[in-house]
Amino acid sequence: MSQPAGPRDLSTMLQPRSIALIGATDRSGWSRMTYANLSNGTYKGEVHLVARRGGTVHGRTAATSCAALGTKVDLGLIMVPAAAIEEAVADLGASGARNAVILTSGFAETGLDGVAQQRKLAELARRFNISILGPNCLGFVNFLDGVPLWTGSFRSPSQPGPIAAISQSGATGAFIASLAEQQQIGLSHLISTGNEADLDGATFAAHLLEDDRVRAIAMFIESIRDPHRFAAAAQKAQAAGKPIVALKIGLSDVTARSAQAHTGALVGDDRVFDGACRQFGVVRVQSIEDLLFTADIIARTGVIGAKGVGLVSVSGGACEIAADRLQAEGVPLPPLPPATEKALIDVLPSFGTPHNPLDITGGAVLEPNLFERALKIVGGEPAFSALVCLFDVPGVDAQASEFQLAALRHISQGLAKQPLPALMLSHTMKPVTEVTQRIVADLDLPYSSAGMFHGLSALGRAWWWSEQQRRERHAWMPPAQSQGLAVWPTTERQVLDHLARYDVPIVPATLVTDEATAVAVARDAGGPVALKIASADIQHKSDIGGVALNVSGDSHVAAAFRRVMAAAPARARVDGVLVSPMRERGLELFVGCTRDPQWGPVLAVGLGGIFVEVLQDVALRVLPVTPAEVRRMLRELKGARMLQGQRGVPPADLDAVAETIARIGDAALALGTKLDELDVNPLWVRGAQVEALDALAVARAT
Amino acid sequence: MSQPAGPRDLSTMLQPRSIALIGATDRSGWSRMTYANLSNGTYKGEVHLVARRGGTVHGRTAATSCAALGTKVDLGLIMVPAAAIEEAVADLGASGARNAVILTSGFAETGLDGVAQQRKLAELARRFNISILGPNCLGFVNFLDGVPLWTGSFRSPSQPGPIAAISQSGATGAFIASLAEQQQIGLSHLISTGNEADLDGATFAAHLLEDDRVRAIAMFIESIRDPHRFAAAAQKAQAAGKPIVALKIGLSDVTARSAQAHTGALVGDDRVFDGACRQFGVVRVQSIEDLLFTADIIARTGVIGAKGVGLVSVSGGACEIAADRLQAEGVPLPPLPPATEKALIDVLPSFGTPHNPLDITGGAVLEPNLFERALKIVGGEPAFSALVCLFDVPGVDAQASEFQLAALRHISQGLAKQPLPALMLSHTMKPVTEVTQRIVADLDLPYSSAGMFHGLSALGRAWWWSEQQRRERHAWMPPAQSQGLAVWPTTERQVLDHLARYDVPIVPATLVTDEATAVAVARDAGGPVALKIASADIQHKSDIGGVALNVSGDSHVAAAFRRVMAAAPARARVDGVLVSPMRERGLELFVGCTRDPQWGPVLAVGLGGIFVEVLQDVALRVLPVTPAEVRRMLRELKGARMLQGQRGVPPADLDAVAETIARIGDAALALGTKLDELDVNPLWVRGAQVEALDALAVARAT
Repeated sequence: MSQPAGPRDLSTMLQPRSIALIGATDRSGWSRMTYANLSNGTYKGEVHLVARRGGTVHGRTAATSCAALGTKVDLGLIMVPAAAIEEAVADLGASGARNAVILTSGFAETGLDGVAQQRKLAELARRFNISILGPNCLGFVNFLDGVPLWTGSFRSPSQPGPIAAISQSGATGAFIASLAEQQQIGLSHLISTGNEADLDGATFAAHLLEDDRVRAIAMFIESIRDPHRFAAAAQKAQAAGKPIVALKIGLSDVTARSAQAHTGALVGDDRVFDGACRQFGVVRVQSIEDLLFTADIIARTGVIGAKGVGLVSVSGGACEIAADRLQAEGVPLPPLPPATEKALIDVLPSFGTPHNPLDITGGAVLEPNLFERALKIVGGEPAFSALVCLFDVPGVDAQASEFQLAALRHISQGLAKQPLPALMLSHTMKPVTEVTQRIVADLDLPYSSAGMFHGLSALGRAWWWSEQQRRERHAWMPPAQSQGLAVWPTTERQVLDHLARYDVPIVPATLVTDEATAVAVARDAGGPVALKIASADIQHKSDIGGVALNVSGDSHVAAAFRRVMAAAPARARVDGVLVSPMRERGLELFVGCTRDPQWGPVLAVGLGGIFVEVLQDVALRVLPVTPAEVRRMLRELKGARMLQGQRGVPPADLDAVAETIARIGDAALALGTKLDELDVNPLWVRGAQVEALDALAVARAT
Repeated sequence: MSQPAGPRDLSTMLQPRSIALIGATDRSGWSRMTYANLSNGTYKGEVHLVARRGGTVHGRTAATSCAALGTKVDLGLIMVPAAAIEEAVADLGASGARNAVILTSGFAETGLDGVAQQRKLAELARRFNISILGPNCLGFVNFLDGVPLWTGSFRSPSQPGPIAAISQSGATGAFIASLAEQQQIGLSHLISTGNEADLDGATFAAHLLEDDRVRAIAMFIESIRDPHRFAAAAQKAQAAGKPIVALKIGLSDVTARSAQAHTGALVGDDRVFDGACRQFGVVRVQSIEDLLFTADIIARTGVIGAKGVGLVSVSGGACEIAADRLQAEGVPLPPLPPATEKALIDVLPSFGTPHNPLDITGGAVLEPNLFERALKIVGGEPAFSALVCLFDVPGVDAQASEFQLAALRHISQGLAKQPLPALMLSHTMKPVTEVTQRIVADLDLPYSSAGMFHGLSALGRAWWWSEQQRRERHAWMPPAQSQGLAVWPTTERQVLDHLARYDVPIVPATLVTDEATAVAVARDAGGPVALKIASADIQHKSDIGGVALNVSGDSHVAAAFRRVMAAAPARARVDGVLVSPMRERGLELFVGCTRDPQWGPVLAVGLGGIFVEVLQDVALRVLPVTPAEVRRMLRELKGARMLQGQRGVPPADLDAVAETIARIGDAALALGTKLDELDVNPLWVRGAQVEALDALAVARAT
């Protein structure tokens, strides 16, 4: 449905010198609102009205078509009914415009007919070389350059800022803008992408990352239209040192149903998206508040060093709430070094205690410069890589008290010229009123109104994002769409051989067809063996009794051979029995490569047994992966501690494990587009010994 | 440090007819502020000033002592320095007052000396029969009866309301009040309990639960001063059908350090507190926002039926965000029955889709009564037990648009007279301004400004609380402080016998002292056996090789007997070897009874092996427990699915398991105050067969 990924120049779309409102009519609230927005003084370009019947619209003369305008416009906003859309696009295209924003709904969101309609629309646009935003969108606002091409009412912060908001849902985009206004968080853009028949959110993100005035991207995502384009945008963001913060729905079954009806979006497997976010450094959040506050905080702090946060407050209770929050977010609060403790003792009242987080006590009410002195001491301490002061600026209907103003002045001084990111954070989420803005501006306060809960959660995400920015990055490219092997590996033996060709260590396994050879091979193994039926027709060998484990002694081996052979169903073609030495006293991992309908080949890694079966404890990534990425996957597992060794099992050599798993991923990709599943289960690990004990490959039904 | 639990009448404390400010001085901001608060017109009683030197304070004549006042006051607010506190309390007590609020700090929060000072203070107060709030507190505000006895500046909602806020930290109490004002959530009381030398938060909670005007208690807790009093208050709240919502710090190590310095509080094991909350139906939250919004939402909805939520919105994006949130909270969104779908199709625009959550589409902009019609249909549907409509009321600096007002009017109509709890919730958290208040009052809107994130999270907690209210309740009483058994069970055999006396099924185990008997007993068992060294001196038998499992055949049994006997250290007194039949193909549980320094005997239940060892997957409760409580514990386990059976292991009979575990708890309590630990590990479960296979009791070092 969408065009191939690639650079597209969206500059004329987002900064059109002239705009035609197509389907303009006084009867439509959307038309009236859009015209009012474009007439509010911020837009400096030309606005033309096009109505099929001409006449007077919004008090001006409307042309009957774009062709009739007699001038080429940069952009057409199309508001005509769905039935008239093709005519409108053709008219716009013929007039030479290259950009369309389509408000009209009734496409992919309505079902299969709508999907077909939308495809026709996209093809038509391509024929005229028109870029489309929408359909079923509310337009966009370019706050930086004064283009309020929005078809509803919208509110905006008093100043544009560095955060670009991109939302598939128009209404959700409006909620984001409304919250941004309430908190006075400056937006650079607000883009509603709707059904994304042509341009999608990732394309806009990639474009906006090139704008120096944009420092963070906040996205509301219902569906990733093109995963590879999303991955490319995310990597571009990493390279630019700018975060992409994503609120993506799709956790619930209900959501999947709901999103389909809403913008015709396929929601996809949420866990794969989550894995991709970790892989590509995208910061995921769960609420509109967190979307905006996280983008705002990261845009301010940039990459935070790996040491920890120093926190100063006038309330012991707040210190404790903050410490719990930061602990939950995995952000360290390093202790104060003795010299710093000593310096603080000289400053604090006698009943104060110097530690981090630092409660400067109610003594600050009598002596507000305690704030400044404490902040300078804590901020100057090299043990910290970020500094937070908790305090409020008056919000609704209130003026600052004398104490509050004095404290704020000292806090501002204490946070100024610090060698590390320094913020003042409100205790709870507060609106930013004119009073607030005046105080913040007068004192040049680095103030966030997010409150401890949202603000410190955002700091936790800034922390995670900073870790991702610090790590070595390898350019990820989607796997080539190869046909794969000429002959699909059908039997376990063939799959193991395929893995071995990619340097995956495999357990020695000898195919035997008679009892005597089985016994001889087992003897050579020098210990207990495993016997498994070898047949391309039998995938779940143990379920039918086709596996015997831990067998020793000639007679037992012989009996096991007979039992395993006898277990094969009558119609199965049987190659014989695979005899392998038993591997015990190790850890068993599950490594599964499957194909996600959206993302293509993905890798799942988990610990064997109940970890995967009962706890669904797996880490997911999009293939290919590097060994370093696999090590991050292993760290994510709830059972990660198992890798550190247990009774009788030495610690796993994580380098060896990660290397092997990455190679299994390569082996899966080598199976090409036919790959449905390549599982190694178990991958046996004992210290530095890593071996695939069993493997299975499933080709896609064609 | 605190008085025994028991009914205390706090009416004169919270509604004093006269108040003396002791240590009043113009030089103190606290004194000035308190006097200003008491003079703001809401307090109708008498205010007296006491200053050691007399003279004029705050423009009035101050007495030199309470005795010199010549009248008996109901309450004294003590602001004198710590060194003068005893004299002040004695003076107050001698004058006949029975209540003191002590602002003075420098007690338990400063260390061991302070703890001793505080104990002396409490004793003095008891001698004079004075109830103390504090020390190190900021006072209280009784909004309902007009008693603003607060020593700082405070802000309050324009109307008192049904939510009592109790905070150990005074500053955090002020943050709660400030947020309540910003969101116009009505408070009944704000009580800062400080160091709780005498009266603690639980005592106030229990008192306020008796006030019909109070419908929810919101507590900020640093430390539970008296767990049994807290448990009693929580049970009283359950009986009254009023929630206690608790924000308790203590997740992090840093917090433990910080809280000690702040109010001299022992933070205690957070997991035990969490288990107690589940046990006693206390709703736990993680932020000040959630504390207030949760109390507010539950105070409005009361107990919500068990069916699910019907949700109506004008935005598909919001529907999806809401669905994800509710799914995360475990609140069902039941599908619409066909008849309701049909009714909605008649109402919705052609491009709308009838499902729950219901997106009535942007069509509502043209036809706002879509809200009313849809809400009436969804709210009338018996499949739902709560109804939520998402929409905004203007907040900061904004008037409602014509559409917004029309929509709000229809929403109000649609939510009115519904047979189920019905709310309108903002999309994001918004302040409640005068504009908001006027609209809400005019339209009689059941509006929450919490936004989807906090509001639906609060609804999730209301859901959980409602489940607890519906369940059968048994009065929980703290265990009697019995001396326990005359003879402590030292050997495994003795511990198993002790368990058996409490009807805990135990594995048959025969103590043998020679090889021949071991073989004979093993033969009688009719299958493989386990042999374990029997010695009061050896606690961890398997670590020293004192256990042989799964032994069969005479010669193997004999050899195992010799091996196990030989494993005993030379100095150990050995009774012999316990021979038991092997129990296999079952599930192994861990049941541990230990003593929490604060809560006393607690019960931990987990699945054996990696669940406890690697995942720390245990449920905790305070003993005694009922079998029903144990069933709830089992449901909480991450590995709960294991109980439903796995390959070769039938589903566990949960009634039998819960019954047995409750009895193990009783057996632990019977060990009395000497109990340090009573573990059954494993408790073996196969279907309805439940047996303690091994047990250990550890007495407290005396």
